[in-house]
Amino acid sequence: MTETLRVGLAGLGVVGVGVIDILQKNREEIKQRCGKYLDITVIAARDSGKDRGVDLTAYRWASSVDEFYEEDDVDIVVEMIGGSDGFAYDVVAEGLKRGKHVVTSNKALMAERGYELAERADEQNVALFFEGAVAGGIPVIKTLREGLAANNISSVYGILNGTCNYILTEMQETGRDFDDVLMEAQNLGYAEADPHFDVDGIDAAHKTVLLGAIAFGIRPDMSHIMIRGIRQITALDFLYASELGYVIKLLGRTRMEEDGTIIQMVEPCLVPEGNTIAVVNGVLNAVSINGDYIGNTLSVGPGAGKEATASAVVADLVDIARGSRTPAFGRPAKQLKTIVEGSRDEIAYKFYLRLLVADKPGVFADIATIMRDHDVSMEAIIQRNDDTSGPVPIVMTTHHVQQYKMKHAIQLVADKLELEAEPVLFRIEDV
Amino acid sequence: MTETLRVGLAGLGVVGVGVIDILQKNREEIKQRCGKYLDITVIAARDSGKDRGVDLTAYRWASSVDEFYEEDDVDIVVEMIGGSDGFAYDVVAEGLKRGKHVVTSNKALMAERGYELAERADEQNVALFFEGAVAGGIPVIKTLREGLAANNISSVYGILNGTCNYILTEMQETGRDFDDVLMEAQNLGYAEADPHFDVDGIDAAHKTVLLGAIAFGIRPDMSHIMIRGIRQITALDFLYASELGYVIKLLGRTRMEEDGTIIQMVEPCLVPEGNTIAVVNGVLNAVSINGDYIGNTLSVGPGAGKEATASAVVADLVDIARGSRTPAFGRPAKQLKTIVEGSRDEIAYKFYLRLLVADKPGVFADIATIMRDHDVSMEAIIQRNDDTSGPVPIVMTTHHVQQYKMKHAIQLVADKLELEAEPVLFRIEDV
Repeated sequence: MTETLRVGLAGLGVVGVGVIDILQKNREEIKQRCGKYLDITVIAARDSGKDRGVDLTAYRWASSVDEFYEEDDVDIVVEMIGGSDGFAYDVVAEGLKRGKHVVTSNKALMAERGYELAERADEQNVALFFEGAVAGGIPVIKTLREGLAANNISSVYGILNGTCNYILTEMQETGRDFDDVLMEAQNLGYAEADPHFDVDGIDAAHKTVLLGAIAFGIRPDMSHIMIRGIRQITALDFLYASELGYVIKLLGRTRMEEDGTIIQMVEPCLVPEGNTIAVVNGVLNAVSINGDYIGNTLSVGPGAGKEATASAVVADLVDIARGSRTPAFGRPAKQLKTIVEGSRDEIAYKFYLRLLVADKPGVFADIATIMRDHDVSMEAIIQRNDDTSGPVPIVMTTHHVQQYKMKHAIQLVADKLELEAEPVLFRIEDV
Repeated sequence: MTETLRVGLAGLGVVGVGVIDILQKNREEIKQRCGKYLDITVIAARDSGKDRGVDLTAYRWASSVDEFYEEDDVDIVVEMIGGSDGFAYDVVAEGLKRGKHVVTSNKALMAERGYELAERADEQNVALFFEGAVAGGIPVIKTLREGLAANNISSVYGILNGTCNYILTEMQETGRDFDDVLMEAQNLGYAEADPHFDVDGIDAAHKTVLLGAIAFGIRPDMSHIMIRGIRQITALDFLYASELGYVIKLLGRTRMEEDGTIIQMVEPCLVPEGNTIAVVNGVLNAVSINGDYIGNTLSVGPGAGKEATASAVVADLVDIARGSRTPAFGRPAKQLKTIVEGSRDEIAYKFYLRLLVADKPGVFADIATIMRDHDVSMEAIIQRNDDTSGPVPIVMTTHHVQQYKMKHAIQLVADKLELEAEPVLFRIEDV
């Protein structure tokens, strides 16, 4: 076998630069660990002239997929462009077709087209690894695929988007509202100019779907996940949550129910303050895995950023150099099943509900009566009568109640009373 | 290649039974994940007649190492006996000699003779894996060896002994003293009848040495670790620590200093209450890894027990079935260096000091003067004058000060004043 593996890089954002940095600086160290040199040969990126702070002079420059492969000097393709089509998809698909190993940090690509790509990788008996796509600094893909391979996994959940966690932490600590904190996060570089993928939960959903695919042996499929972002959360919600002993986190969760169906969701949840995941703040990520033999485990670490993701990408390269050919989703793609989605409405959760009602006598009794008559058992209620005569916020938490009953009760309340705003309903994650 | 890997088990305690349970129950699932059946062929354990709750009738029974290998029906040896010599060592050494892969959950064996065994495994090009030896439910060996392979690690530390953590948590929560809680832990099965290995820190030291070997590419060597157990901690220390904003944890730590020397230790430390590791309670383990690209990560999970350790052992088996041949300590044994131990005395730490002095006028001023004159800057001091005329406890925490200065100052205090008990000194872990 050759002593050197030749690496082609597609995409040269911060992660790409980080990968080059590690491969250059730790070249000998890496050779010690895996017995081979990992040497970059070709780079595909938009602007070849831009100064990125690393020395690129030794590498060939490609501006098309054809050029990327034309010299036949690539053993492993590293794709860090992002997006599920265009150059990102093409360079990976063509690489697999040519029998190259692929490492990618692209969650959209893997969540949306990972099944097809995994099939191609299996056919060619090459590796398709994507540790950098989920929770950068926490090797959760490896942990699920290998470290916990003996377990039947029952659920995986966690804080999977650092931008949202940064915004929520800031809201919690400073009492400011979403728009205000988002703008600050954008100025600080923690949020994109177009924050849609992050704050609307898409990014976390990509990651949740990838974790579910490995955990349950199912094909990644973005059409079977409920997604809700964090725009709806107000400073008031943090105040009430805190008073009730909770913090608010955007959680991604994939879980197998007792009947074997799977429910996947990304949504803001109330988490008890005493829970370890509640103190995971700022841009950190956290992943909790629950298995039949392992019980519960939790890992916390940097979720994204140049260094952490680059470190994950290089770890995949080292694994390939060491000969690892574990299938992308932990078992051959042909064995991955189609998800059978459970009915979330039937599941009993605890809820947090915030209503804004016109301040008239008896509204509180009306709400309490409707809840009682429809099997919603309230755990705590906060209603404050200020001097103002404007609308009154009423906040409550419930005991476990099936979601369809909860929604029905809220509908009845809305029918009967004058609601001054859309009811805000969050699940309480009490695991 | 064969579709079945034949597994020989040496040792049939709770972990061994757990491994059999997983291999029997998840046989098809495991085949899906690694493409091969993992079938037990032979078992070596003391009492073949005892009912262990699993069906052993299909397996051959061996009462010596010769018998274990005589039928040539073993591809992988799983050693779960414990101890660094006798049958445990012999069955592993002989297995490697015969070119068998080895999986072991035996930390003493790997910490004390792991270098020699890793050399043998390398010569035969077979796997020698030991995920089950450290923090059972947390795949920390795999994380260090593979997941963070791109990083230069600066330190690894954590709560590595569930028995001690259980005892310390109980002391903290109930205010009881060590002996009392130890007895209860023994009755509950959380501590052995002879608790020496656990409460005196040996078990945590074995694990720390193994983590250090992988993190820094050094030979595991039990002669270069400072070990201190938890017997010296009193209920009073928990009270004072709490008043000062700390909890007490037994931490194992291996760290590379700036000059490249390595300092390894197991000792009770004060940890700030706000630190994530401070809320890891009961029999849980936690491991924090710090690397140049990864920053800080923390993993929490069950540290021992039948299921968690068995899960780790089977994960190693699955890795071997998938073809993984990563060297035992992450790089070829011949490349592992001899540790160059740093001088702990030169390092500046923060300290917690508890003194018991005869209650005479001016003792406090005497202590404060000695500390000041010898560069020990005090951060907080607790001295209470009860009505009683007995000895008075004086507790203080310091700012960073080199350990030799701290010890020197304590010696001077002991020379000048009448100490009624040995001074108690704990390091404050403020990372």
